Amino acid sequence: MSASISGASRADLVADTALALLAERGMRGLTHRAVDDTAGLPQGSTSNVARTRQALLELAVRRLAEREARVLALDEMPGPGAGTDAVANALALALHRAVTRHRDLTLARYELALEATRRPELRTSYDTTGARFRDQLTALVGALGSPDPDRHALSLAAWGDGLMFSCVAGSYEPPPLPALRQGVRELLAGMLGR
Amino acid sequence: MSASISGASRADLVADTALALLAERGMRGLTHRAVDDTAGLPQGSTSNVARTRQALLELAVRRLAEREARVLALDEMPGPGAGTDAVANALALALHRAVTRHRDLTLARYELALEATRRPELRTSYDTTGARFRDQLTALVGALGSPDPDRHALSLAAWGDGLMFSCVAGSYEPPPLPALRQGVRELLAGMLGR
Repeated sequence: MSASISGASRADLVADTALALLAERGMRGLTHRAVDDTAGLPQGSTSNVARTRQALLELAVRRLAEREARVLALDEMPGPGAGTDAVANALALALHRAVTRHRDLTLARYELALEATRRPELRTSYDTTGARFRDQLTALVGALGSPDPDRHALSLAAWGDGLMFSCVAGSYEPPPLPALRQGVRELLAGMLGR
Repeated sequence: MSASISGASRADLVADTALALLAERGMRGLTHRAVDDTAGLPQGSTSNVARTRQALLELAVRRLAEREARVLALDEMPGPGAGTDAVANALALALHRAVTRHRDLTLARYELALEATRRPELRTSYDTTGARFRDQLTALVGALGSPDPDRHALSLAAWGDGLMFSCVAGSYEPPPLPALRQGVRELLAGMLGR
């Protein structure tokens, strides 16, 4: 039992270190050796957890999904009766967390998204997470009365993603929370015709 | 004279090949050797044009700016009197070009944006281009009557960027042109309170 728990924490440590390396050094800087060194693990430890590069990348994507779900906390969004302002506030808070305290995690996600364009198996893992996230957004805009929830979920996700990308990989300072809130409100207002 | 013209076309060939390699193989697949091989140039040719990796990346960023300016064609946007629908149509067309015919160029831009987070000199080149682009968007939303053109330009750029990212690096099919048009119109309507 304790061996399996320690196996899980070793895998998490390897995955978290891989994500940190992706943010700091990019895809070229992620190697099994670099993970061992950065995590302070004996050489060969990362290979024991994830033998191939593909396995290491998939481990990172799964861990990213767990951690990002907590950062974005879409399943804790206001319920159906909450109204547009409450939803806008909650989404703005989630975005603000993603571009400030969790900037490196967000950056690692973009590295993995680009890598997934050339690795079909990584594509599958990455898209499974993306689909869950999109379903939550579709339900959210549907509950607000969107006449076209699929398209509107894509629009909202795109706006948030582009904003996160501009902040973590572009030259924009993360906007203050009120500006984010206002931005989400405007987008929702345009969608919902309010 | 002819030597200098041929020098320019050689540099363009190297830069275009670097951009194509970035889209196809990512940052790890871009090497001087791979550019020589892919472009069918004698070994050492790329090094003659751009000695260091940094120089090669800067050459790619400059070339990207030239080519993307033509794809997005922001300086051919409808003039001040044109109204929201004409602007929405033009922006939707530009986005559609970027995610269909010019998908690889767009993908290469995201690779370079991420690399710029860890290379200050590349950051400067990348941001100079970004600033020009943002100024054009600021003028555009200002002409439409935006009460907060800077924030609205960021919002519009983020929406477009996120949409492009989802299409070229995510699992979304590029939306058909009418859906893009509708999306831009909704965003503008929300911003402008119409």
